[in-house]
This record gives sequence, structure tokens and C-alpha cells, in this order.
Amino acid sequence: METPAYRERSVVCLSGGMDSCVTAALAARDTEAYAIHFGYGQRTEHRELQAARAVASRLDIREFLHLHTDVFRRIGGSALTDSSIEVPDASPEFRERGILDQHVPVTYVPFRNAHFLSAAVSWAEVLGASRVYIGAVEQDSSGYPDCRPAYYEAFQQLIRTGTRDGNIQIVTPLIALNKAQIVRLGLECNAPLDVTWSCYREEQQACGACESCVLRLRAFAAAGVEDPIPYAATGGTSKAGGI
Amino acid sequence: METPAYRERSVVCLSGGMDSCVTAALAARDTEAYAIHFGYGQRTEHRELQAARAVASRLDIREFLHLHTDVFRRIGGSALTDSSIEVPDASPEFRERGILDQHVPVTYVPFRNAHFLSAAVSWAEVLGASRVYIGAVEQDSSGYPDCRPAYYEAFQQLIRTGTRDGNIQIVTPLIALNKAQIVRLGLECNAPLDVTWSCYREEQQACGACESCVLRLRAFAAAGVEDPIPYAATGGTSKAGGI
Repeated sequence: METPAYRERSVVCLSGGMDSCVTAALAARDTEAYAIHFGYGQRTEHRELQAARAVASRLDIREFLHLHTDVFRRIGGSALTDSSIEVPDASPEFRERGILDQHVPVTYVPFRNAHFLSAAVSWAEVLGASRVYIGAVEQDSSGYPDCRPAYYEAFQQLIRTGTRDGNIQIVTPLIALNKAQIVRLGLECNAPLDVTWSCYREEQQACGACESCVLRLRAFAAAGVEDPIPYAATGGTSKAGGI
Repeated sequence: METPAYRERSVVCLSGGMDSCVTAALAARDTEAYAIHFGYGQRTEHRELQAARAVASRLDIREFLHLHTDVFRRIGGSALTDSSIEVPDASPEFRERGILDQHVPVTYVPFRNAHFLSAAVSWAEVLGASRVYIGAVEQDSSGYPDCRPAYYEAFQQLIRTGTRDGNIQIVTPLIALNKAQIVRLGLECNAPLDVTWSCYREEQQACGACESCVLRLRAFAAAGVEDPIPYAATGGTSKAGGI
């Protein structure tokens, strides 16, 4: 019997959405992958956890670490974690062209990804992992500044200067892709997109009308494949700008 | 009646130790300060919370936010959060000259300060605060890489690229000071050093023998003032390298 080749370890941030699912599939293909999932009091917290666990169990993930933080609920300021702020429907302009109608949407969670990356890097240090994967997409950065390449370069420098060995690499395999390319890449690497969850608003059936649902529906439509998850009758592809 | 001058808001990381106490005193003097305290499963968690609350109540702190995270206990890897790893006595060399006998001590908590700063920046975004204060000291950075100026410069760049407005300043007023200078500065700005807690090991009475106690005792001795907190009979100044 051959000794298996040494495989690098990685930690992957796994929210349970489409982008993190594809990212986790790549991490599990190329490394010995450990998944970290965050509950942070977001509206769809339980549904996202269920999706993330399902994605991990379909991929070769060594360990699934579920963390919870109440920091965002305690400080408020986002529609995702503050029940007094409503999650809006995507605007007509967003539905048609994917353009946000305000600089930073009410669903922005202040400095959120720094919390996720910090935990992933801490765990990577303990595991001796050499990579941290995160499914950030630059296309989203008009609304969410913590999705820009410059942000991940800054985080890389933070790791260089602030960890024991300084040599954990941040890997953002989707950063330059558009959503249709992400769907296609997911299909190529057998990412279990059928168990993912993207809706910002509901936990039973995706609403099909919030920005996250609309973005997802546009992605599948542009990739020319059907989204494998069901949508509420009032939502669905018909709401996604007619695509 | 005069309208009070506009004061900038700040968030200050307040552990309840000597350095954070002096930092909080400066923040409260110069800004409208909000304090954030972290429990992270460290051995002396309850004692540190008590100290941090006492410091905040002695200073003009607008709000005290106590957060708890179990991430460090869950991932392990540090003597501060893993009860199976013992907190050692300071080595004789450390006692005499303040030099750590290994590159990174067992009390290192992987990438810890990134978690604290991330929460402070998130809260600062919601509050509209323009500064985040943290009492990092470069002298500690031989053992704790997340105390270096380069680390805070990298974090500043992370804020520039990853927040809504990009203009929250990280303020590290103690970074270039030695511990004796910190004690003197604390006395000058009326920092309530008598209610702070530094011991890594005990919660009833400071042990006087762990690295953190030894560092503190050396600081007061070098500043030529008596440390206002009591130490266990077996510890105390006699253990701090004879100073």
C-alpha cells in the first residue's frame, strides 16, 4: 500500500451559501480541509447552519467547527441581525443589472468578514494549516467593502505580522469571478449546490425576492442551468428581473 | 449655559489589566469613550471582568460592552484557555531581564488581538466612532507577535479597505513605552491602577510569580512606586528578580 502524499491543511469559511460551497469544494479537493461556520444572530441562522453542515457532509471535510457570536446582535446596525430593520426586496435596477441602489445596503454587517477570518486564522495556527479559504467575490464589493482584493491583501499582511510563523495564506478562489462563472465552477468540481442556502429573509423556502436570492437566480440563469433549490410561489425566477 | 464642544467618539479595548486601564484613561480624557471587554474562557475570566468593570466605573466611560467568545476554548492551543496546559512561573532570566526563554510562550493565544480589534471596529462603525484604542506594548512583542507596530499598521489598512467609510483610526498610545513609563503615565492621568488585574493564574490574589505578575511588579519597581494591589504571600516583589 502506498503512503498517501502529504497534503496541506486548510481552514475554509463555510456559511452554507453558494459561494462558500464552491470554495469548500475546492479546498476539500486540494487540501485536508477543516470547515468553520458562524452563527451570528442573522435572521436565517438555523437554516444556514443546516446548509453548511449538509455541504460539509457531502464533501471530504475533516472537522466542522460551529461557532456562535452575539457581537452583531449586541451592537446592532444591520438588517441581517436587527429584527427592527426590514430586509428589503431587491430594487428593480438591481434585478435588471445587479446594481445596488445605495452605496452600502442595510444588510451590510459592519466589518463582518474580519471576525470570520480572525477565527479561521486562529484555528489554522492551532491545526498547523497553511491556508485559509474564503469565498469572497469582488463583484459584491460595491455594497460590501470587505469583499475587495485590497482587503484580503491587507489581511494577508496582518497574518504576516501577527501570527506565530506568519505563513498562513488567504485563498480567495472566487474573487475575480462573476456569479455565472461561480455556478459553472461549482458544477465542474461537484459542489453540492442543491443543499446550499442563500436567502436573507426566510428559513422555510427561499423568498426569491431579496438581493441575495435575486443574485443567485441571476447567476443560475446566466450559467444556463436551473437552480436546484425551490422558491416560494410569489418569488422565484419570475421576480429576478424576468430572467 | 455653553454648548459643550463636539467630542469624537472612541471604542477602547479594556481587559482590566494595567495597560488597558491606562489606555482607557487616555481615551476617556480625550474622547467620548465606549469600552469593550472580552471574556474568552481565559483562566482568570471572572476576575478580569470584575477589574474591567471597576476601571470603567472609575473613568468617564459611556457604555461598557461585555462580549464572550468560546472560540479559543474550542480550538485550544494556549495555556490561558486550555486547563490541560499549565501557566508556568516566569523563568529566572525573565525575572532578571524581562527576556522570554522561548520565542512564543505557552500563554500565547493564537491571533487573539484580531478578534478584539474586529469587534471594536464593528462597534465603532455602528457608533460613528472615529478611533479604536488598544493598549498594545511593543516590548511584549518578542512573545506576542500581535503587539508589533507593523501589525497595527496592517490592521489600519484593513480598516481603510474593509469598512463603510474607511476612516476609523487605531490608536496605540503605549506602543513605544516601557512598563515603568506606563505606570508613570497611569499616575499622571489618574488611571485607577488599584482596581486592575494582571495575574494569568489566580483569581483571589495575584500569584506574583507568573510572567504577567513579574512584568507588572518590575514595572512598579522601576517606576519607584508601590503596586497598589496585594499579592499572595509566596509571590510578591521578592519573586520579581529581587527588585
